[in-house]
Amino acid sequence: MSTPLVVLLSDFGTRDWYVAALKGVMLSRAPRARILDLTHEIPPQDVAAGSFTLAAAAPWFPPGTVFLAVVDPGVGTDRAVLAAQADGRSFVGPDNGLLWLSLEQARRRTVVRLTNRRYWLKAVSRTFQGRDIMAPVAAYLARGGLLHRLGPRHRATPLAWPAAVRRGRTVMGTILHIDAFGNLITNLRVRRWCPASQARRCALQYRRRTLPVVSSYAEGRPRQLVAVIGALGLVELAVRNGSAQRLLGARRGDAVMLRLPP
Amino acid sequence: MSTPLVVLLSDFGTRDWYVAALKGVMLSRAPRARILDLTHEIPPQDVAAGSFTLAAAAPWFPPGTVFLAVVDPGVGTDRAVLAAQADGRSFVGPDNGLLWLSLEQARRRTVVRLTNRRYWLKAVSRTFQGRDIMAPVAAYLARGGLLHRLGPRHRATPLAWPAAVRRGRTVMGTILHIDAFGNLITNLRVRRWCPASQARRCALQYRRRTLPVVSSYAEGRPRQLVAVIGALGLVELAVRNGSAQRLLGARRGDAVMLRLPP
Amino acid sequence: MSTPLVVLLSDFGTRDWYVAALKGVMLSRAPRARILDLTHEIPPQDVAAGSFTLAAAAPWFPPGTVFLAVVDPGVGTDRAVLAAQADGRSFVGPDNGLLWLSLEQARRRTVVRLTNRRYWLKAVSRTFQGRDIMAPVAAYLARGGLLHRLGPRHRATPLAWPAAVRRGRTVMGTILHIDAFGNLITNLRVRRWCPASQARRCALQYRRRTLPVVSSYAEGRPRQLVAVIGALGLVELAVRNGSAQRLLGARRGDAVMLRLPP
Repeated sequence: MSTPLVVLLSDFGTRDWYVAALKGVMLSRAPRARILDLTHEIPPQDVAAGSFTLAAAAPWFPPGTVFLAVVDPGVGTDRAVLAAQADGRSFVGPDNGLLWLSLEQARRRTVVRLTNRRYWLKAVSRTFQGRDIMAPVAAYLARGGLLHRLGPRHRATPLAWPAAVRRGRTVMGTILHIDAFGNLITNLRVRRWCPASQARRCALQYRRRTLPVVSSYAEGRPRQLVAVIGALGLVELAVRNGSAQRLLGARRGDAVMLRLPP
Repeated sequence: MSTPLVVLLSDFGTRDWYVAALKGVMLSRAPRARILDLTHEIPPQDVAAGSFTLAAAAPWFPPGTVFLAVVDPGVGTDRAVLAAQADGRSFVGPDNGLLWLSLEQARRRTVVRLTNRRYWLKAVSRTFQGRDIMAPVAAYLARGGLLHRLGPRHRATPLAWPAAVRRGRTVMGTILHIDAFGNLITNLRVRRWCPASQARRCALQYRRRTLPVVSSYAEGRPRQLVAVIGALGLVELAVRNGSAQRLLGARRGDAVMLRLPP
Repeated sequence: MSTPLVVLLSDFGTRDWYVAALKGVMLSRAPRARILDLTHEIPPQDVAAGSFTLAAAAPWFPPGTVFLAVVDPGVGTDRAVLAAQADGRSFVGPDNGLLWLSLEQARRRTVVRLTNRRYWLKAVSRTFQGRDIMAPVAAYLARGGLLHRLGPRHRATPLAWPAAVRRGRTVMGTILHIDAFGNLITNLRVRRWCPASQARRCALQYRRRTLPVVSSYAEGRPRQLVAVIGALGLVELAVRNGSAQRLLGARRGDAVMLRLPP
């Protein structure tokens, strides 16, 4: 058997001792675990960005991988903490939508609310539950632990992002996240409205520009703005070898529109 | 036996080849070692920040872990290089206070000065001793090597930080470090003057604000400034879901005062 | 046998899911691989900086290490993708000069062009060949795969950096890369013109300053500017405990001159 894999995502940054504390707790309880960082640079408390980034990366990892995700503005309140299994991978994180996009795209999923303190650290702080509750639970799952022992079944809270709204031949959406390359990721799952055969007849409108929706940004010329179907099937505005954010001065939350063929 | 764990801390940043060179040297000599980054973003040459960050993370790692820490403004001078064992963990780094807070908090510790060149690289530069001396010694310890072979016993140099000074019912202190969340970490070990039963009767004064010392920042309301007992028992100024640094315009080295109950 | 080691370098940054996708693909195909990050902060599309950083780190790693390097402004064009073996280490990356400095410094090297789709992901995008072609090939090599199965022999494209040009007793060069410490790395391999015995009689000129070429920056006083022979034998302008870039306001591409002894 290969050693278990644990992949971390947070908004902790990499300057401080917080991420290391998570790792130390996990390695104390699952000494053979191999720990990988997905990223710790999710913008502070940006649950939507964390949910997107986690769900975009997760399908590339082998079954059995455990994902520990901590973007948790509600820490210290009574929001639940979850563990889940989805298509053979495990997820641990707060119940605030962070795991939502990963769970939603899976064919099968089971979600529990963490209540069994036996799998937590003995002393649980109210402010660092990533270390005190989530890390030891992730270590337990990495060692092959059983999900149902962690707590009762739970219905995960959906990601609170602005829903795409259809009005006739137009779908109103928004820019969900901007990545480090300056790609603008929208909340528009284009396949829902435009079947693959018709995708090019669908167009994305942002401010005064209208662009056909293409399936690869290689279809654009260098420096050309394109609307491309990206991770999770979401439409992205991208510039080959450039930054759509800089080109357009775009901001998270800006409105976009999908124009459907008549 | 699980594979040995080596945890790195430095001010090298992560853009260049320097950290990789440390890792390559260690893996050449301890091929089974698992290497983890604590952080490489200690502010350049900030020994106090490095000492705090290392000591805050170390207790969360299992016994047997080797810590290699390089924040070394004195490289190229005749400052000593140390290896130490403290409560079952090993530490390697320059003798400039960087290891001090980790050693000081241990119940048992043994410190040696590195003099036995047999455990170093053959060619030792004057400017990259992290790679040429410390990394191979850390690899030797990760393979189960014996501390006393590395050199003679040594008395580690304490961390040169401003001492807290008591005058009557007041203890004068300072801001030692500001973390990426904007928490202001002071040099005040509050338990030394305020037993747990009296902590709330102790107050921290910073500029014109006076705050009770609490044991968890969850005791504050969101966005409220609190004085909380943090890592290593040091008082921190923190804002729940916010940045005390931004709120207060605070800087490293600012004066703080602890007011003791009469 | 120790587990195979894969070392990654890219300009992807560490905020997004792109690096994790590479790792997930590799771990799906080489579950025992240990993956290390050299850096993902190469300046965007800066092939020369990537080539230097890779070649400076590679010799410190043990034989058998696989390096996967992706700085790839030409992705989506018909530039080749390479795998190579050089002095017992393996390299995978685009054929744009990125691997050049690593290959050039090896005593023995074999380079192939990746053409055998059997070792790629089944679906290959035109825009993320790091994930779809290079990562699975790196995993194949990490598992002990055979280079010659990946494709036919190929002549790697040299790094397109400004050549150093000698005119009489002067060699005209340029600043190739500036690292995070502010060291200015030139394209001047000083040994080519100044044998070790004469090095101090060679002088580097940058703007109006002329400096002897020394072999360690410890030879300078703190805060003093020195011209020192650094990684790959290239002359660097450096300031001990300081930043040559800040001191001089230097920029990548600035002209430097090496003055040879008469």
